[in-house]
Amino acid sequence: MFCPVIALTQQLIRRPSLSPDDAGCQAIMIERLRAMGFTIELMPFGDTLNFWAWRGQGETLAFAGHTDVVPPGDGNRWINPPFEPTIRDGMLYGRGAADMKGSLAAMIVAAERFVRAFPDHKGRLAFLITSDEEASATYGTVKVVEALMARQERLDYCLVGEPSSTEVVGDIVKNGRRGSMTANLTIHGVQGHVAYPHLADNPVHRVLPALNELVAIEWDRGNEFFPPTSMQIANVQAGTGSNNVIPGECFVQFNFRFSTELTDEQIKQRVEALLEGHQLRYSLKWKVSGQPFLTPTGDLVNAVVNAVAHYNEIKPQLLTTGGTSDGRFIARMGAQVVELGPVNATIHKINECVKASDLQLLSRMYQRIMEQLIA
Amino acid sequence: MFCPVIALTQQLIRRPSLSPDDAGCQAIMIERLRAMGFTIELMPFGDTLNFWAWRGQGETLAFAGHTDVVPPGDGNRWINPPFEPTIRDGMLYGRGAADMKGSLAAMIVAAERFVRAFPDHKGRLAFLITSDEEASATYGTVKVVEALMARQERLDYCLVGEPSSTEVVGDIVKNGRRGSMTANLTIHGVQGHVAYPHLADNPVHRVLPALNELVAIEWDRGNEFFPPTSMQIANVQAGTGSNNVIPGECFVQFNFRFSTELTDEQIKQRVEALLEGHQLRYSLKWKVSGQPFLTPTGDLVNAVVNAVAHYNEIKPQLLTTGGTSDGRFIARMGAQVVELGPVNATIHKINECVKASDLQLLSRMYQRIMEQLIA
Repeated sequence: MFCPVIALTQQLIRRPSLSPDDAGCQAIMIERLRAMGFTIELMPFGDTLNFWAWRGQGETLAFAGHTDVVPPGDGNRWINPPFEPTIRDGMLYGRGAADMKGSLAAMIVAAERFVRAFPDHKGRLAFLITSDEEASATYGTVKVVEALMARQERLDYCLVGEPSSTEVVGDIVKNGRRGSMTANLTIHGVQGHVAYPHLADNPVHRVLPALNELVAIEWDRGNEFFPPTSMQIANVQAGTGSNNVIPGECFVQFNFRFSTELTDEQIKQRVEALLEGHQLRYSLKWKVSGQPFLTPTGDLVNAVVNAVAHYNEIKPQLLTTGGTSDGRFIARMGAQVVELGPVNATIHKINECVKASDLQLLSRMYQRIMEQLIA
Repeated sequence: MFCPVIALTQQLIRRPSLSPDDAGCQAIMIERLRAMGFTIELMPFGDTLNFWAWRGQGETLAFAGHTDVVPPGDGNRWINPPFEPTIRDGMLYGRGAADMKGSLAAMIVAAERFVRAFPDHKGRLAFLITSDEEASATYGTVKVVEALMARQERLDYCLVGEPSSTEVVGDIVKNGRRGSMTANLTIHGVQGHVAYPHLADNPVHRVLPALNELVAIEWDRGNEFFPPTSMQIANVQAGTGSNNVIPGECFVQFNFRFSTELTDEQIKQRVEALLEGHQLRYSLKWKVSGQPFLTPTGDLVNAVVNAVAHYNEIKPQLLTTGGTSDGRFIARMGAQVVELGPVNATIHKINECVKASDLQLLSRMYQRIMEQLIA
């Protein structure tokens, strides 16, 4: 039995689009969108292909996603070659099946059905597609968003196709993401011989009380939508390798995943006050990789919940857990942003797969969301 | 003016005896000792030449030292080629001048004068010489001592020629050394993604309270002869280098320099009890590189103090500070062990040098020590 969603997913999987190489995936999507009457704006930046496409005008619902995939790992460990999609026992295997070529296919087919049913839809339907979400994400969605914001493009609702589900499609929907920020801390001491500690100043000994205090802090308790802010020390490095040399410096790198209860500035101030309190000589560099965002209950969340309930007879859980996604960039436009995609159990792994019928359901859900918001 | 101590020192410096290469130094010493009627026992082990030499019988005073030197570093930065000894303004320059070819020459010349004056001395005069004290010290004094102990050789007094002085020869005498012991600690956690801390177990966070407690411990307050035991963290390593991965392990290496107030076993027990108290999963490997030793006031210390006072009109300070020396091995034989040698300001450095007249004084001091103990 021919299914257009599965067929398009397979067509996209056959193109080995390792980040940031699009490998022709966007051309396939663009051809289908153009046939539906979309206007296409190619927006390449640096090494990354992106496009923005729209049809109609007014209140805007955009579907967002990426054509790039992570490397397949050892191809011999796959039950099928990773770029040759195969269906076994109802599961579609191939790199990108779940993250997120299945979602892209579901979006395109949903748009085709929606446009056929509502050729004169009242709102605007749009696509924001990048070929670098999995790697550095430097020239992808963030650049497109900057360009759209510079010309005051309207974006009311954005549905990101990231694989949000854990057991069945729609059981979990992401209506926000935590912020992410990294501190690179170097404590300065004085190097010396362990036999003469009075002539040295051990930066490890100096920083221990401060770090001990840091890891014990309760940053916040989260809120209805966010888990508590968490801090993790990711790297520590001190010493010359010799057992008789007191190190001159100690490097500590720690990362925050923070809720909307705190701003990056509040966290920075608290960390710096703590370090000052311990009278440390230090250098500290911060890197904010994403601000937290939240889409509370509203038109988009309601439409998503309705669509999931209609096709899967479950009420999705709204969560903000997990890593970051391109949603963090799109939220800056003031849009409501929700992530709804297939089950993520196998993403980034050997034998990535997705239930074929889930993609069909997902496409129907996407169509129903369009109908509720811009029909 | 010809001085036999300076002449022999220069002869030894000309042989570039980089550890463990003796480069013919011991052959020169052996020829002189044999001429005095010493019995020579060559005791090579592994890559290291050693010898044990004795004359007479009964209560035994041994002089101990090493013929090897550390590398000269950048030869162009020396005012003279490092293995071509030169005297300028009364200072003798060359690698090994202070550490410790000057001492070796002072010992040999002192023995020659002593034997001439007391050909039938009542005690036994001995030499324990190695060619690896500066590098691994694996096949040097420790092996000779083991062989001597295995056959119950008598050793009552040992004078080590290590450069103990800081301003003028004899101002500081070492009558003991601290113990040295290193702990290699690995804390086991569970690696994971920083976005999902509940699925991981950060070993850095786990170990911080324990380390914080460890560095705050007062191990002892030292005693009349020893400074307080000191612990220094020399190396810390955790993390994959990525800012979004919680490390699976944390490695911490710390070194103790401990007084005779504590044994290595007491320190180990205290550290392990502390780690157990923090309920850590860990692996811990100890390496004891030297037990502490102490030669309290007695015949040898009295003879050394008397000799220094006689020739330099100062009362030497008895200290146990600094690194380790081969004295730690010799003390195991039950001998009183004292270190007396020239000023150590330039040892292991570019332009190592020693005051020529200090070596002459040192030789007289050594001779007077022989006279007091075994004449």
